[in-house]
Amino acid sequence: MPHESFESIGKRALRLHKYAGGKFAIAAKVALKNAADLKLVYTPGVGAVSSYLAAHPGELRDYTMKGNSVAVVSDGSSVLGLGNIGPAGALPVMEGKCVIFKKFAGIDAVPIVLNTQDSDEIVRVVKAISPAFGGINLEDISAPRCFEIEARLKRELLIPVMHDDQHGTAIVVLAGLLNALKVTGKSLARIKIAINGAGAAGTATAKLLCLAGARNVIVCDRNGTIYRGRRGLGKYKGELARLTNPKNEKGDLASAMRHADVFIGLSGPNLVSEAMVRSMERSAIVFALANPIPEIMPDAAKRAGARVIATGRSDFPNQINNSIVFPGVFRGALDNRVRAITDKMKQKAASAIASLVPHPSPTKIIPRMFNPRLVKAIAAAIR
Amino acid sequence: MPHESFESIGKRALRLHKYAGGKFAIAAKVALKNAADLKLVYTPGVGAVSSYLAAHPGELRDYTMKGNSVAVVSDGSSVLGLGNIGPAGALPVMEGKCVIFKKFAGIDAVPIVLNTQDSDEIVRVVKAISPAFGGINLEDISAPRCFEIEARLKRELLIPVMHDDQHGTAIVVLAGLLNALKVTGKSLARIKIAINGAGAAGTATAKLLCLAGARNVIVCDRNGTIYRGRRGLGKYKGELARLTNPKNEKGDLASAMRHADVFIGLSGPNLVSEAMVRSMERSAIVFALANPIPEIMPDAAKRAGARVIATGRSDFPNQINNSIVFPGVFRGALDNRVRAITDKMKQKAASAIASLVPHPSPTKIIPRMFNPRLVKAIAAAIR
Repeated sequence: MPHESFESIGKRALRLHKYAGGKFAIAAKVALKNAADLKLVYTPGVGAVSSYLAAHPGELRDYTMKGNSVAVVSDGSSVLGLGNIGPAGALPVMEGKCVIFKKFAGIDAVPIVLNTQDSDEIVRVVKAISPAFGGINLEDISAPRCFEIEARLKRELLIPVMHDDQHGTAIVVLAGLLNALKVTGKSLARIKIAINGAGAAGTATAKLLCLAGARNVIVCDRNGTIYRGRRGLGKYKGELARLTNPKNEKGDLASAMRHADVFIGLSGPNLVSEAMVRSMERSAIVFALANPIPEIMPDAAKRAGARVIATGRSDFPNQINNSIVFPGVFRGALDNRVRAITDKMKQKAASAIASLVPHPSPTKIIPRMFNPRLVKAIAAAIR
Repeated sequence: MPHESFESIGKRALRLHKYAGGKFAIAAKVALKNAADLKLVYTPGVGAVSSYLAAHPGELRDYTMKGNSVAVVSDGSSVLGLGNIGPAGALPVMEGKCVIFKKFAGIDAVPIVLNTQDSDEIVRVVKAISPAFGGINLEDISAPRCFEIEARLKRELLIPVMHDDQHGTAIVVLAGLLNALKVTGKSLARIKIAINGAGAAGTATAKLLCLAGARNVIVCDRNGTIYRGRRGLGKYKGELARLTNPKNEKGDLASAMRHADVFIGLSGPNLVSEAMVRSMERSAIVFALANPIPEIMPDAAKRAGARVIATGRSDFPNQINNSIVFPGVFRGALDNRVRAITDKMKQKAASAIASLVPHPSPTKIIPRMFNPRLVKAIAAAIR
């Protein structure tokens, strides 16, 4: 298919954003045409609702936005592949997410971009603004700060909190992998999986694959494989070292990929060569998910013998992108009023996504984002 | 006119809120029908917008919601006449305000209710969430905390911050008073004005009236007139004592109202008797603005000889309510990108509102909220 250049897409996106004045707008769920409406929407009628809710805070979701709202919160510390560009740079992405939330799941999501990158402050701020929201979607917060911020908010809030870069990605990767394994006739318990990238996405993906039954996952960061005993791992990579790499293999990414059945790239552009793919097992599965430039281009991976190839991009087959996950996850969380999104729910969501492709093939392992059954299927798993 | 009871309005409001699931919803300003749209709204196209804004943060208003958005922030410490009912009780009011912002001024306002009532924390939180917003509407925060919170935010943010309970009220009272004085043939510089209530609204109203040319304003709180030398006034009432009460009159509300030309109630129900109104000057102006029960009912004030009578309610003539002010103020602030809403702007806004009633009469001193010229007229004053 003909590819429009990123430059051209970017120019069109800039024009659209300027023309529209951003993407996010407000709407009213109630009529406000005359003084009679105003009496109910605002004073004096609203006073009865306020008194009632002050006395019955447990019913807040029934009478206010809380029943259908999510705050999409970012500090702009790790935006797309652009890095730490701060709240101004993050805002268009958060608005885009909110528009996607509305379009695909009917959720009223609000962009909150923060002018602080202090973890304590972020936790305080999110807690302070939480009463109006039924869920918190953390977004584009850099690792390892994202792990601590999410963990603390999950502990301290009674509404679900999910860092989408971690768990949205992990869920969609697991979903794609389940179908790719059907295509290649392999089983999760017996394969070797090499993951490049130990940031938010790589860490959460490795953990979810292990929970789902993978026994031989090796995660690499810039310094090679993560293994028990490696110096200076820190808390979160140390935990990865305990969970993964059963043979405690040392070496670089190339060595981790040797004889691997699956490569999952959640890292950066052009980090994988054809030779590295050629060193993998037969019927290799290559998920090169770095955006917008994958770890290896699909045609190169194919030349090197990969059987199933996926990217994060919409202009190649098999787009593995967390966008297909988060609307359904929060739809389910809100509808079922869950207090937390558990590992079990994430696995079920991945299975639900995978099952929407009844006959997986090398170029069709994942449903399209516009699949009308997608959100409902995922939501049903979050309960 | 036949009055529906508050109980009945309240019941209908409760039903409406539950049926609709609150009042606040999100909408998209851009199409999102297919993958081609998605490329511009989200990745990869949005990446170009993010990079551009990271490099040109000064253009944030042109490409994002910031150009047209206001955060409506409350800690629920002083909601309507209900007092300190907290964030759950405040949320329906804030949603109502956001719906009014949208309906009357096309502004995309977002309710933020806080689960903290610590002033330092509120300042920190509002500063942290400010990047996405073009203005901050503080709401239903109790005095005297509201004064300090607003002053600090005004100092520390480059977007306009307005505590509507203070300034929206002050503007609409001044507007109504300008026309009431036309009706009674009196002049602001020569009259005596008694204000009951030294909270957010009473304090801001007293100050704005003085700036507008009133020379004899006396403010009362629960303990009577505020005068220089009264014990335990504190910072904000001390300031009022310096600005008002030129003859330093001591006494209760009844004494303050004696020979007054104007009474302005921003206090509580039934605090003013017919005898107190009778003690005022001829052609007395009585603004009994406590909601929902005024300081004195209009029929009683009329019996006692008042010439112009206003309340905060929509079911009597002359509704003086800040709802007619805030949409236009923020419309003007956003359109003209003002950094602060100054006292001069407030006076101009009041004059603009007053001028929309070409021939003021005792029962018509203030335009209706649904007057189609209202928002534009106020907005033109905020520049």
